[in-house]
Amino acid sequence: MQGKFIVVEGLEGAGKSSVISLIVDLLKSKDIDVITTREPGGTPMAESIRACVKHNWDETVTEQTELLLMYAARSQLVANVILPALAKGTWVIGDRHDLSTVAYQGGGRGIALSTLQQLKTITLGTFVPDFCLYLDVSPETGLSRARGRGELDRIELAGIEFFRRVRTMYISQIEDMPNAATIDAEQTMQQVHADTITAIMQWVEA
Amino acid sequence: MQGKFIVVEGLEGAGKSSVISLIVDLLKSKDIDVITTREPGGTPMAESIRACVKHNWDETVTEQTELLLMYAARSQLVANVILPALAKGTWVIGDRHDLSTVAYQGGGRGIALSTLQQLKTITLGTFVPDFCLYLDVSPETGLSRARGRGELDRIELAGIEFFRRVRTMYISQIEDMPNAATIDAEQTMQQVHADTITAIMQWVEA
Ligand SMILES: Nc1ncnc2c1ncn2[C@@H]1O[C@H](COP(=O)(O)OP(=O)(O)OP(=O)(O)O)[C@@H](O)[C@H]1O
Ligand SMILES: Nc1ncnc2c1ncn2[C@@H]1O[C@H](COP(=O)(O)OP(=O)(O)OP(=O)(O)O)[C@@H](O)[C@H]1O
Ligand SMILES: [Mg+2]
Ligand SMILES: [Mg+2]
Repeated sequence: MQGKFIVVEGLEGAGKSSVISLIVDLLKSKDIDVITTREPGGTPMAESIRACVKHNWDETVTEQTELLLMYAARSQLVANVILPALAKGTWVIGDRHDLSTVAYQGGGRGIALSTLQQLKTITLGTFVPDFCLYLDVSPETGLSRARGRGELDRIELAGIEFFRRVRTMYISQIEDMPNAATIDAEQTMQQVHADTITAIMQWVEA
Repeated sequence: MQGKFIVVEGLEGAGKSSVISLIVDLLKSKDIDVITTREPGGTPMAESIRACVKHNWDETVTEQTELLLMYAARSQLVANVILPALAKGTWVIGDRHDLSTVAYQGGGRGIALSTLQQLKTITLGTFVPDFCLYLDVSPETGLSRARGRGELDRIELAGIEFFRRVRTMYISQIEDMPNAATIDAEQTMQQVHADTITAIMQWVEA
């Protein structure tokens, strides 16, 4: 049987990494094979693209370059890791996927959604996740949690207004998605974890 | 006055590098400021993308990834080098540009031209070279000349049939382009250079 692809999305510091560990433990306790991925990255070539897009270059990085690199990394990951795993019945828990591009490059940078749709079709065809969990935090909360982890990369250095636009786009996209749930990630980690388990179980049993 | 963007195209070993030196000397002798570029590459970030796309990865490199990386590098080069040079009146001689993508990823890999057109519009808008010089050689001639230079990279390692499709696409594209000339690059270097000067002067004086 084909595995399922669950994606966890949200601003930096929303708590994705910790929620992903929780979901992995939950699935393993049900004897499901599971792997995790992160984007951009997840294969040697995609990690090299990740390093390139996150590096603080002296030159201007165009919006187009950033966007194309995100899709290049995604193409490698989907072809070489996600699809083969799903085909052999392994579930995949993704730390970010295509919705991040819509939120960051679409909402944040202001690239037209029709452009993103064209690139998505070119790169992924009709491939979409089975379920998406969006951890909603304010940029203030998320960035202050993320800052605790060390230096910020090129994208994290964008201003607070950028992250407000990212969050607004996340919220409006999630509203229109069939297999998606929003978790209030301003809550305590314990409450976030409880809500996550409820959301995943509701979807699994639906 | 705005500078002009001249692109030299052709298979590996066609003689692009040597023709570009000749054109640079010709323009300098007419007191024109000139720079050269190469694609993919030409800025620190674009050179890092070049290294990534040419590396012999252990994983499969998808057609889409290769294509997206070519455009990512091109976006950096056009925004940070070519457009600023042209704006201050400097001429730019490009060792490959968008036509290479049409020939290699379109002709060689078989990606639909409509897909390439979408990516081109996303990345470059309506930007096009002022003149294109295509050096036509058979893959046999080109590859045997290129082999003299050392190890072949990932793209150069494709089979001879690949390069036949690339050449066929070059020829069919050039036929339809207004400001373009084909040079028979099977000839001696001396004759190739003579034809190049004639073609450039005809275009300049037209
Ligand atoms: N609900 C929460 N309340 C308080 N702190 C939290 C909460 N969730 C996560 N944290 C803490 O915030 C920091 C960032 O969390 P985490 O790394 O899981 O976020 P993330 O969404 O994966 O961020 P990034 O996108 O940058 O990887 C960690 O130190 C984590 O322990
Ligand atoms: N017309 C010619 N006849 C014989 N040898 C040639 C001719 N043109 C170029 N060469 C030689 O072939 C080799 C490849 O030429 P060159 O490097 O200019 O090709 P190129 O098109 O720039 O290749 P690449 O795309 O791989 O950079 C060089 O050693 C060059 O001296
Ligand atoms: Mg994380
Ligand atoms: Mg050369």
